[in-house]
Amino acid sequence: MAATRYRLVVEYDGAGFTGWQVQTSGMRTVQGALEAAIARVTSESPRVSGSGRTDKGVHALGQVASFVLETQREADWLSAALNGVLPPDVAIRQLEAVELAFDPRRDARAKRYRYELWNARVRSPVRAARMYHVPYALDAAALREASSVLAGPHDFASFQAAGSPIEATERTLLAVTIHGCPGGELAFEFEGTGFLRHMVRILVGTLLEVGEGKRTPESLVQVLAAKDRTAAGPTAPAHALTLLWVRYGSSSGGSPELRGSRDSPARTKG
Amino acid sequence: MAATRYRLVVEYDGAGFTGWQVQTSGMRTVQGALEAAIARVTSESPRVSGSGRTDKGVHALGQVASFVLETQREADWLSAALNGVLPPDVAIRQLEAVELAFDPRRDARAKRYRYELWNARVRSPVRAARMYHVPYALDAAALREASSVLAGPHDFASFQAAGSPIEATERTLLAVTIHGCPGGELAFEFEGTGFLRHMVRILVGTLLEVGEGKRTPESLVQVLAAKDRTAAGPTAPAHALTLLWVRYGSSSGGSPELRGSRDSPARTKG
Repeated sequence: MAATRYRLVVEYDGAGFTGWQVQTSGMRTVQGALEAAIARVTSESPRVSGSGRTDKGVHALGQVASFVLETQREADWLSAALNGVLPPDVAIRQLEAVELAFDPRRDARAKRYRYELWNARVRSPVRAARMYHVPYALDAAALREASSVLAGPHDFASFQAAGSPIEATERTLLAVTIHGCPGGELAFEFEGTGFLRHMVRILVGTLLEVGEGKRTPESLVQVLAAKDRTAAGPTAPAHALTLLWVRYGSSSGGSPELRGSRDSPARTKG
Repeated sequence: MAATRYRLVVEYDGAGFTGWQVQTSGMRTVQGALEAAIARVTSESPRVSGSGRTDKGVHALGQVASFVLETQREADWLSAALNGVLPPDVAIRQLEAVELAFDPRRDARAKRYRYELWNARVRSPVRAARMYHVPYALDAAALREASSVLAGPHDFASFQAAGSPIEATERTLLAVTIHGCPGGELAFEFEGTGFLRHMVRILVGTLLEVGEGKRTPESLVQVLAAKDRTAAGPTAPAHALTLLWVRYGSSSGGSPELRGSRDSPARTKG
């Protein structure tokens, strides 16, 4: 009996889940769906651990998770078998055996999220499931300037859900990028070493206040300095947020990047 | 009392509708939703006519429709009022007063449809609502060659739903284009002077058999010549099909094109 740890890249449509993490109340979760599929296929009941939780309604193209089986299974067989019994809104994109010490949360080096917007006066039924409708005009230059204020290492306490128990709130935003144009399909992408609870959605809610002219880009310096949730803007809705990938491997050790997902559902303006 | 005809560009997510056309059984239709909204906003009950029907599950970014009101209303007011009462899965993108003689079906000069595919071994939960999953490898060169066989004026009787009453089955495909690449997100676009019932979906089902190697591109010449539904491939599912726009205006008269929709939800590979 050789216990084997598996690392998997998971894609899911968050609309039908109460989030990643198994709830005591028995609601439908991604972790729960994966654990049920593993039990059905292998007759073992390991706990599945993820790189982090995603909130109710948030999607993932490349969430990374891991579990240990007492009986080793061939990776391609296991991946196909799990996809055969998983519900339609979750799928395993990659699965491989890794060292037993791998920890998808602790070993994660960076993550990238995308937040998608439909910026037009009239709402778009075809885009409504995945994009947040912003009916007012947005100032592209102000958005770019605000993005560069947010990038870098900061204490993001102002961008953490009120009441979160986390006290170490320093994180590094490696990149904040804007794709598309105001007046159409628009996306913000956030790449960072780690994210606080609701951080991306509060960043988006605050950026939109800048884009609308309610705040100046420079005012975000004070928002960061305040270290107070009430200084930032509202939490943008979850349905427009997707976890694109999680990166592993030491950034200094020269080892190749292991990304949760190399592709992305690029949905830029034609 | 000046009776006024309005022309509207309508967007809808087809997933929740049994199609465009009002059914006797009282099922949920786009036409029915529009007629209910007009009655609620104007207290008149005109019939709404469309450029053509779309099937159950088919989406539209730029369907064109028309109706007549006995009492004239300001177009921007009417558009906003209707969008305020329409359900979330249908919206009016444009609305304007036009000549009383306008007929959205008879006056249409061309339409463009997009059919979206996810071509990868593993299904994609995030893309499943809008793209048809094709798990086998596709031959890009064969698809391009087959597309050029289909373009042009042909008798498309082989590509019409069995049992259709239409006997004049000659149509012109002005363009058949392929966007994206095999092994990822892929879309076929079909622009034509008119389309028979299920024509786009049968074209896609037949093209996919060419891409898979079950048919040669040249064999489509015989499929067209057969004028028999059983000669063509299967009908691809409806959920991946979107009516992009309908074009009006005489192509010879030099009048500017009036397109139902100028933009499109370009979803090309990153």
